[in-house]
Parts: sequence; structure tokens; C-alpha cells
Amino acid sequence: MRRLSTLAALLLSTTALISHAESPTAALERSFDAAIDPAEMGSWLKTMSAEPNHVGSPHDKANAEMELALFKQWGWDAHIEVFDVLYPTPISETLEVTGAHPYKLKLTEPAVPGDESSKFFKSGLPAYVAYQGDGDVTAPAVYVNYGMPADYDQLERMGISVKGKIVITRYGKGWRGLKPKLAQDHGAAGCIIYSDPRDDGYAVDEAYPNGPARPAEGLQRGSVVDMTLYPGDPLTPGIGATKDAKRLSREQAPTILKIPTLPISWGEAQHLLATLDGPVAPRAWMGNVPLTYHVGGNGTPIHLAVKSDWSLKPLYNVVATLKGSEFPDQWVLRGNHRDGWVFGATDPLSGQISLMEEAKAFGALAKQGWKPKRTLVYLSWDGEEPGLLGSTEWVEQHADELREKTVLYLNSDSNSRGFLRAEGNHSLRHLVASVASDVIDPETNVSVEERLRGRAQVDAAEPGAGDGIKEAAHAAAEGRDMPIGAMGSGSDYSAFLQHIGVASIDLGYGGEGESGGVYHSDYDDFAHHSRFVDPGFTYAAVLAKTAGHMMLRVADADLPVNHYADFADQVGTYLDEVKRLAKSKRDTAETQAKLLQGNLYRLADDPTKPSARPTALKPVPQFDFHPLEEAAEHLKKSAQAYDTALASKGASLPAATKGELTKLTIATEEAMTADAGLPGRPWFRNLVYAPGRFTGYGAKTLPGVREAIEEERWDDATAYIGLTAQALQRYADKLDEGVSLITKG
Amino acid sequence: MRRLSTLAALLLSTTALISHAESPTAALERSFDAAIDPAEMGSWLKTMSAEPNHVGSPHDKANAEMELALFKQWGWDAHIEVFDVLYPTPISETLEVTGAHPYKLKLTEPAVPGDESSKFFKSGLPAYVAYQGDGDVTAPAVYVNYGMPADYDQLERMGISVKGKIVITRYGKGWRGLKPKLAQDHGAAGCIIYSDPRDDGYAVDEAYPNGPARPAEGLQRGSVVDMTLYPGDPLTPGIGATKDAKRLSREQAPTILKIPTLPISWGEAQHLLATLDGPVAPRAWMGNVPLTYHVGGNGTPIHLAVKSDWSLKPLYNVVATLKGSEFPDQWVLRGNHRDGWVFGATDPLSGQISLMEEAKAFGALAKQGWKPKRTLVYLSWDGEEPGLLGSTEWVEQHADELREKTVLYLNSDSNSRGFLRAEGNHSLRHLVASVASDVIDPETNVSVEERLRGRAQVDAAEPGAGDGIKEAAHAAAEGRDMPIGAMGSGSDYSAFLQHIGVASIDLGYGGEGESGGVYHSDYDDFAHHSRFVDPGFTYAAVLAKTAGHMMLRVADADLPVNHYADFADQVGTYLDEVKRLAKSKRDTAETQAKLLQGNLYRLADDPTKPSARPTALKPVPQFDFHPLEEAAEHLKKSAQAYDTALASKGASLPAATKGELTKLTIATEEAMTADAGLPGRPWFRNLVYAPGRFTGYGAKTLPGVREAIEEERWDDATAYIGLTAQALQRYADKLDEGVSLITKG
Repeated sequence: MRRLSTLAALLLSTTALISHAESPTAALERSFDAAIDPAEMGSWLKTMSAEPNHVGSPHDKANAEMELALFKQWGWDAHIEVFDVLYPTPISETLEVTGAHPYKLKLTEPAVPGDESSKFFKSGLPAYVAYQGDGDVTAPAVYVNYGMPADYDQLERMGISVKGKIVITRYGKGWRGLKPKLAQDHGAAGCIIYSDPRDDGYAVDEAYPNGPARPAEGLQRGSVVDMTLYPGDPLTPGIGATKDAKRLSREQAPTILKIPTLPISWGEAQHLLATLDGPVAPRAWMGNVPLTYHVGGNGTPIHLAVKSDWSLKPLYNVVATLKGSEFPDQWVLRGNHRDGWVFGATDPLSGQISLMEEAKAFGALAKQGWKPKRTLVYLSWDGEEPGLLGSTEWVEQHADELREKTVLYLNSDSNSRGFLRAEGNHSLRHLVASVASDVIDPETNVSVEERLRGRAQVDAAEPGAGDGIKEAAHAAAEGRDMPIGAMGSGSDYSAFLQHIGVASIDLGYGGEGESGGVYHSDYDDFAHHSRFVDPGFTYAAVLAKTAGHMMLRVADADLPVNHYADFADQVGTYLDEVKRLAKSKRDTAETQAKLLQGNLYRLADDPTKPSARPTALKPVPQFDFHPLEEAAEHLKKSAQAYDTALASKGASLPAATKGELTKLTIATEEAMTADAGLPGRPWFRNLVYAPGRFTGYGAKTLPGVREAIEEERWDDATAYIGLTAQALQRYADKLDEGVSLITKG
Repeated sequence: MRRLSTLAALLLSTTALISHAESPTAALERSFDAAIDPAEMGSWLKTMSAEPNHVGSPHDKANAEMELALFKQWGWDAHIEVFDVLYPTPISETLEVTGAHPYKLKLTEPAVPGDESSKFFKSGLPAYVAYQGDGDVTAPAVYVNYGMPADYDQLERMGISVKGKIVITRYGKGWRGLKPKLAQDHGAAGCIIYSDPRDDGYAVDEAYPNGPARPAEGLQRGSVVDMTLYPGDPLTPGIGATKDAKRLSREQAPTILKIPTLPISWGEAQHLLATLDGPVAPRAWMGNVPLTYHVGGNGTPIHLAVKSDWSLKPLYNVVATLKGSEFPDQWVLRGNHRDGWVFGATDPLSGQISLMEEAKAFGALAKQGWKPKRTLVYLSWDGEEPGLLGSTEWVEQHADELREKTVLYLNSDSNSRGFLRAEGNHSLRHLVASVASDVIDPETNVSVEERLRGRAQVDAAEPGAGDGIKEAAHAAAEGRDMPIGAMGSGSDYSAFLQHIGVASIDLGYGGEGESGGVYHSDYDDFAHHSRFVDPGFTYAAVLAKTAGHMMLRVADADLPVNHYADFADQVGTYLDEVKRLAKSKRDTAETQAKLLQGNLYRLADDPTKPSARPTALKPVPQFDFHPLEEAAEHLKKSAQAYDTALASKGASLPAATKGELTKLTIATEEAMTADAGLPGRPWFRNLVYAPGRFTGYGAKTLPGVREAIEEERWDDATAYIGLTAQALQRYADKLDEGVSLITKG
């Protein structure tokens, strides 16, 4: 209570001091900021990361209960919402080299002298990837580099197959879950994923505990569920995993892998890599395990066996509400997950403590008499790590209400020292930039937007800078809003944005704090986080301010915060990209046909090494992009008209119309969804933003068309040119409705 | 004698069989090819690489004497020409880590079980780089990656200086000699160059003797003389190093380094890398020594001491002549060096044996009654390794005669399995292509030109293929002659092309044979070469045929073999590049000025790490390129006119005019030289082709202008726009003379 009294005093005095010069929102933001206390966040982080807190662990539940109590204490209406999900845990695991010199690989991480967490290593999960397919296989291994499609193309040119073999792949360059899935699609019997020191170990920085990087014994847990098909509980696609929900059987669930898979450290993986025979791996495939990498195929067999407990486990989502005073049925949502793979200090608790601190600060403001105009909902998700379970089940359970009421879902996850990173619906770019222009970076004392501008311009001046960074530098030099990225997947916004079409933003800081090396390992703990990732919890405070201001501005805005011309421009850029893609695919296929016809691969290949011709690419037809071009044109005109009308007449509109306009923004963003969903994965209903089938976390924009062209599905491409054009037309129609509303006054 | 009789019979029968269908030259080439015997070349290679054969070694002299005897036996007029050059050899060397855990580094390479050469390791050179500066220094080390200018730029941004320190740099990305020179220019006290396993060791392929790559104990010797100023004996720039030549003192010689420098293996270098403190090295600087690379600066001091014997040593060039029957004063030259760093099996004897086999085959043809129309001169150079000594001194000694008489200098050096590589004056591109179209690749049974076409098209279809390879693929697809490269330096053509303006070509095969890993080490021996580089000496035979045919076609040609439009086109391309360079330098300087003015580097940098602002770039003026543009235009028109005239009227010209036209090609190519030479390095007189001051071996074209722009010497740029334009005008004038000659008939 003492803390709150002090805060109240501070709040009043701060407000008094600045009230003559500032807008009410700016004054509120100053009061909000004054409540942000890094030391408090650090102490929560220490408590919450003290023991393993994966789904089903006692500490995960304890953290949920602690948060529930805090939310209530801060004056929020809060409860815990439980779901019952399929969440496998290991019963037994074996990974060993057979033959004359057998070796049994260690599947746990050793303790670190002086690190308090070490005593809890035994109660955490061993080496494991959730939703792999139990099995017991013995076969020679094949090394497939990052295990991405281009790697398999290269293997094919080397004349090497993974059929019936155990694939060894390294983490990086694509989502974890794609690696065993692609191995399985190519006929492999099992899959091992290891962390190469070139990617996050001693070849990047000193290894923990001397430095932040992954130690030789560090391994990356994670999920390999096929989230590109649908995230959430594999047994309840599209519906909430309540106690009585209708469930698929485990065998029916298409997102569960069929082959046994384990993750492993490089210190242990070197025993597997040493078994590989056959050709020396291509130069770009060489990592920093100190040996010569071979591709393998006929070396000493590896024995891999995994057996899991496939029972249902409970999820605990904490849901806290601060009711809106003017528009209680317009909701502004804020979420961050709470479950980790082990201690989860950086991932996810570094973001969770900011969310908590925001809720505390809003509670304090509310106690001072302020009320948000719209309803704030704060969400502490469980089960994100195994497959966005908590958020997905909640969205599926409350889909209709959320679709109708949600103005914005604002997400965060791991957070560290450095630069603002933001992704979101592009009509919200200006919202992000305007908030970022008012939050001060503690390292440089300029706004976090200003710091982004500086970095973009410096980076763009480096030789070989890409088009994206050059575009950002132009925006920076011209003082325009900095670009934000498109949302793929990998955190809890997916169900909001991609399943029900709710406008979403994902925020975080990073680029200087070093968390990559302990990602999903035992070493992602309080000691590591406070030494290397966010010393002093300074950027936890910056995230709380950034997210808090954004929540506040949306919750209290009189008029829509969207700038639709930004979205229309971005769609225009995406359409150009897709058209260039079609042309480049066509050129590639034509070139390859000539190479095959002339048998030129034979001339380029070293005849002393195994090689084979690549699979022939399908000839690429001419696509009729007119429907998309017309829709993009309509969108551009309508967006321009809307933005102009709102700017000139918005302020003078009656209060009811203002509220109606914000309500309309919900339907506008939702207009980019379609019931058909994406080809082969109807759960993904957003036709503008999706995670890529072959990128996993990485975004694909205009995905129905783009991926169809990438994957040689010409009929889908044509069908989705039409469907996507319709979605964009619907979006533009909604903007036209808005213009009428504004014009009518 | 038996061998020659058999050959004679074969020659006669082959000639008889094909004489009804083939041109006389084609028939001669078939006879020539029939004399090429891989086994014989292999046996010479075994003999000549049996013992260390560096300058001054008994075996180097023995090889010269063996060759002299063979040339005479084959009917050539041959002699050994001796020069006396400054060639330092080590007296004592020390490299050690000081401090609490001292370690003395091993400076020799260990024997390989089963490799016969091993017993001679003791009589070879230890770790040594010729023309380093003797000294004895103790200082902390700084790691500078490849030690190239961009690496020092990055060090500056990290706020780290090498002043007074010992620089540790890795081999690669630029010529060896630049590394200690740039270290010295930045104030370093000493320099260590090591071979990183990422560049040529176990991260590329299995290490010798299991595979071809550099073993942990393998080290690269070499020269660090400042060849970019002038090659050859440091004491006799511009004149032959005869017994009585006027010599500089060692102290006066500007090409000798001032700081002590040693090369070392990575196995030993890791003890030095372990002493480095300070910031972790940038990610791209990490090699495959199994530790985290730091930049250093204040770690445990290193002690480096080198003392050399700086006496003069004799060079033995073997010079063999087969006199021309029609134009004895038009010479066609063929050279390859004979000295190695230790056994020199691949470098240089793999090319030397082809040269010898060609001489044998020409001798046999001569004994059958054939005589070349022009004089053939075969040259076995000594002292190439320390600094192109043998060829440079010979050219300087005979400059006037060579300038007047030499139609072509054809060079080769190390040779291995794979693809043809050719560089040369661009008027000779068609000569290269026409020869390459008639030599069959033994692995694919198509011509070596055809194989190049296949590879270029396959490589160009790879994602991220560069402009050069795309241009080559276009040429291939359209059936045009394949491009040849511009000549920089690194082998014995330098004095011919760049000092006296003699048209030159450098040829070799490679890309499949694996020699990089033993380059300049004890392990470049017969066992390695015959296992990994050119098993069966198949490509020694292909090189002999390629070079032999080229010699034959030039020696016996009725009319000039040059296609001047090829040269004119290439000059046009170079001029475009230089203009783009000026624009891009200007943009870069303007951008950087904005970044400095806005203090944006501060915003981009991590304030917890040391950093500094970069040195300001000089603003780039607008250059007046008109003189060059006009010259290039004149060149293009004249070249077109010449080629057309020669094609339509050449064959019908009187014999005397034909001879005069070839004579004129000599003066034409020489026209691109100027007495002023390049800025600051007058020995380099060619204003179109030069080795780069900061690339070493790599070519810079239109170097007077290009390098002046690169190095912010604006006055030089303007002056050399004029001088280079004059040279191109002179070249075009010579072509105009040729047109008159042809037109007069």
C-alpha cells in the first residue's frame, strides 16, 4: 500500500506541474510513466523464473495465481480461464551411435557453477520437441544443413536421398518445426536438430557463463507442431479446448509429426556428425563444430527412440478487465505469454513483466479517477511455447465476441536491450510511429523512433545494404513514419490477426541484449537475463511505456487512429512483389528447361563426385493480375478519400459518429479475411497476412497468391487472385462507408 | 631415342590419315597432340619435386640443368641466363606468448606418415615470408580479420588502434603482401599471418593426408615484397640484376617491409588468438579455430623476432629458342616458373611440365621438317615466388629487344583438374576461344570452351549469381566467344604486359583439383598433387595442348590473330564502371557527411561497446570524362574498321604486308603504355591493365583513373583521364595505320 500512496502523490504532482502545457493524453502518459519501476519488474522476473514453468508445471500455475492476485489488487476484474489441451511430455528418450564405438548422447544440460537456477535443472524438461512423433528407429544419418527447401534441392543435385535415414539438421534460417516436417516429407525416418556454434554458440560470442552465447552443452527445446496448418491444440482445430469439446484422436490430428525428433547440443551432436561419410558438405554448410562436415548416408547407424505421455494437461490463461467508460463494448487487448520452456526468464517473462507493470500503472491511474473510454483487457497466456495454445483456444472459444468488439490486439514476447521492433496491420503504422516518437531511449536520450531513424540511415550506408533497409533510411531521412513489418507467426497474435481478422501489433526491443544463445535452454534464467539481456530491466521499462501509451491512445482516442493510405501503399508494394515473383519464376523455369535440354548440368559437374539433375520446374503460365490491380487501385483511392475526410472533418463530428467510426475500423480490418481461408489451410483466413508454409514464423503477404506461385500451384494462384481481390474490394468498400459517415457528419 | 621414333611414326600416320580433310594447322595440332604423354610429365614432376627447390637450393639449380639438357636434346637452342638478386633467408626466428603461461610456437611443419617427401622437410624453408623487415618486438596482439582496408575501417568504428601492436591477420581476400604493409601503414610493430581452417582447412575439406585441405600444422610461406610498387629484385628496379648492375642499398629499397612478419599454421595460431582480449570480433570475422575470436589490444604480449641473411643469391632462367623460318624477328614467348617454396609440385611444376612437354613436341615436329614461321622462345623462370624475379630481371635486361619483337607472351603457373581459366589482352579473346573450341576436355568429351559455356549457364541460374557470370552465360547462350579476365599480377606476365606493354595471356585449368589447402606449404608435394590435384596428369596434358596450339597458331599465322572490337568493347565497359564508381563514391561521401553531421553513428552504436566515428570521406568533385569518352569512341570506330578491313581484304594481301601487319600489332598493344607510368609507381607503365595497389594480385583496369578515384586523389584522377585518353588515342591511331596498310593492299 505504501508504494501506491507514493505513486498517487507523484501522479498528482506531475499532473499539476505539466497540465498547463500538455494535452490530457500526454499528461496521462507522464503519470503512467512515473509509475513504471524497473526494480519491481526485476523482482517479479526473479520470482516467476525461479523454477521451471512450462505447461503443466507447478510453478506455471503458481505464476498464474500470483498474477491473478496482483491484477485484483490493482483493481482489475480478473479470472483464470482453463483449457484442457493435448500436451505431450517425454517418458523415455534414447539417442546413440551404434557400431564398434558406441556412444550414448547426453540429453540434459549440465549445471553452471554459481547460477542459482542450476538446482532446478532436474525438474525441467530434458531435450525434447513437443508434438514430434514417437518412434524407435536405427539408420545412418544424412546432414542437410538448415533442412530448408533449398538445402534439399542441393542434396538432389548431389544425388543424395534422405529416404529411410535419420536427418541431422542445424537450427536457423527457418522455423524449427519445418525441419522435421520437410525431413518427413522427403522420406526420412527420424530427425535430429542441433545448435551449431556458428549460429548461436562460441563463434558468435563467448559461451555462457563467460558470455551470453550458447555453451557446448546447451540445447534448444521447442515445438514442432505444424503451426503452418493451424496453431493451438492439435485435437480441437477451430474450437476452444474446453473440457467437453469435441476432439480429434491423436492419430487424426494432422499437425502432429510422424517421425521421432530430438534437439541436441553441438557438444553431443559432434558424435553424430563424426559418423557421417560420403561427400564433403558444401562450403556454406560448414558450421563451427571442429570437424569436416560430410553429407553422409551410409555411415555408422544412429539409434533414435522417443516415447511420450500424450495425456491432456490444463492451461491457465489469466484474463483481466478494466471496463471502458464510454465504449465498454470496444475492447483493446494486450497479451504476452507466461509459460517458458524451462525458466523462461527472457522468453517470455521479460515481456510479461512489462505487461504486468502496465496493468499496475493503469490500475493506479484508475484509482486516481481516470477511466479508459474503451475496455482494456490484459491477458497472460499459457501454453504459447508448444503452439500458441492459450491464445488460440481463447480466441477460438470467444471468436464471435472478439470479432465484433476488438479494436486492437497488442502483443509482446521476449524483450531485450536495443531498438524498437514493431510489426502489425499497416493502417496502424502511424500509431506505432507516433507512440515511438514520444518514448525516450534510455541509452541515447532521443526518442526510440529517432534512434531507429539513425540506425536505418547508418545501416543503409553500409556496402550491400538491402532494399528494405534502404527504404527505411529514405523514410528516416525524409522524416516520414518508420516502416513496420508484416506479421507472420511465432507468438500469440496469430489467432487474432489470421483467424478472426483482428487488427494486431507485435512490439519488442532488441538488437543489443544477447538472448539468442540461451533461447529455449536451461540457461535462459534470471542470472543470464540480468547480466546479458536487459541489465537493470531498463528496456522492460521502455517496453511498458511503449505498450502502455499505445493502449492508452487507442483506448481513449476520439477518432480512429488508422491511416489507411499506409495500408493501401503497402498492398501496392506487395502486389508489385508478387508480379515480379511470377516473372522471375517464369524466367527461372525457362532457363532451367534450357539447361536440362542442353544437358549442361553434366558439363558443370565434377564427374568424380556424385551428382544428379534437378527435378524439372513446371512452366509458369501468364497470370491475369487485373482483378488484384483493380482492387489495389480502388483501395488506394478509398484510403486517400477516407484519410483526407477524417483529417478535415473528423474533429467536428458528433460523439456518436466518432464512436461508430472506430467500430467501423473493426469491420474494415476484418474485411481482409475470407471463410475459404488459404489453400489447404482454411484456419488461416487472412488473405493479406500469414505465416509462410515454408518460412514458419516469417510472414507471407498476399499469401494465397504468393505461395501458390512459389509452390507451382497455378490453379490456386488464379483462384486466389480473385479471392484476394474480393477481400481488398470489401476493405475498400468499408472505407467508402466510412467516407459516407464522415461526410454525412 | 625409342620414344622419339615411336612418336615419329605416330606423327606420320596421324598426319596421313587426316590430311585430306584438315587445314595444315589442324593437322599439325593433331601431330602435336599425339606427342603429349601424361606419364612422361608425371615422371618429370616426380623428379623435379623430389627435393626443396626454392631460389638458391641445389635442387632448383639441378632442375634448371636438367631442363637445359632436355631442351638441347629436343633440338632447341638453349642456355641458362643468370642474375644475382637480393633474396633473404631466415637465420633465426622466434614467435612466443609471454606472461604467466608462456608458449613457444612451432615454426616448421611435421612429417606425414607414408609421404616420401617428409624426409626432406628439414632442408626446406621454415615459416618465413620473404622481404619482411627483420626486427624483435614484444607487444599485445590485435586481430584484424583479413587485414584489408575495409577491415581497418571496421576497426576504426570499433575505436581500436593497431599502433604499436602486433597484428594477427588471416590469409585470404587479398594478396598476402598487403596484409603486413597495411599493418605497417597503420602503425603496427609486427604482423602474423595465419591460415584459418574456414578458408583452406578442415572447414573446406578433410585435411591432408586424409584429404586435400590444409592440416592444422600447415603454413603458407610467400613473398611480402611490395610488388604493387615494382616486382623483381628490390635493389635493381627497372634494370637487369646482372653481376655489375648498379644497386640500391637494402635500406633504400622501397619494396622491402619495415616490420617483422611471420606466417603460421592455425594449430599454432590458436595460442596467439587465445591471448586476445577486448571486444568480441564481428561475426564475419569468426573463422573456424575452435574459440571465440576477440579483437584484442591489451592482452598478454606476444614476442616476435626475425633475423635474415640478406646476401645476393643466383637465379637460373632457362631460355630456349626455336628460330622462325619466315619472321625470325617476330617472337612468340612461353613461360612458367620453376622455383617453388618447398617441393612446389603443384606450384609451379604442374604448369612447368606442360611447358616442357610442349617444347618436346615442337622439337619432334621440327625434327620431322616443320619449322615455325616466327621464333618460339620457351622460358623456365627462376625466382618467381619471392617476387617475379626471374622474369622481371630478364625483361628489364632485354626490354628494348622484347618491346620490338614480341608478338605474345603466354604464361602459365599452377595447374589442376577442371575448367579453363584465361586472362589476357582483350584483343586476344578470340584467339583463346578458337583454341579452346578445339581442345577436348577429357572428363566430358566436349571442347574446353563448350564446358565453360555449360558451367557459366548453370552458375548463372543459381540464386544470387553476379553480373560477371550472367554476362558469361549470355555469351555462352548466344554462342559468342567466352569472356577472358583482365590481368593483374601474381605470375610472370607482369613485366611483359605492365612494364613494356607486350600482349600477354595467362592460362590454366582448375576448379576441381584441390590444391588450395597445401599452397606454399611442405605438403605441396608429388604425393598430394597426384592424389588430389591432377590424378594421372590428365590436365597437364590438356594445358600442354591448349598452350601448344596457341603458340602454334600465333607462330604460324598469316595475319594478325587480334580482334580489336573485343578490346574496344571491353574498354567501353571499363569506362562505364569508372564513371559509376565516381558517382557511387560521391553518393557515399554525401551520405556519410549527413550521418556525421546528424551524429547518427551515436544512435546506431551500442553504447556499452567501444565505438568511434569513421574518418570523414573527401567530397567527390565532378570529373570531366570527355577525353576518355572521345578516345573510347575513336577506339571503337577504328577497331571496327580494322576488323572489317582485315576480314574482307586480309587474305589477299601480299606476304610482306601480312608480316608488317603482325609487326604492327606489337606497336598497337604497346600504345597503351606511357612513360609516366601509374601515379606513384612509374614501373607500371600500362594504363589499361595493372595489379591493384590494394588488391595485389587482382586486376584494376584503367588503373590511373580508377584507383585515383578509389583513393581520393582527385588531381591524379583528372591527370590520368587525360593520359589514359591519350594512350587509347594512340592505340586507335595504330589501328588506323593498320586500316591504311590493308586498304593500300
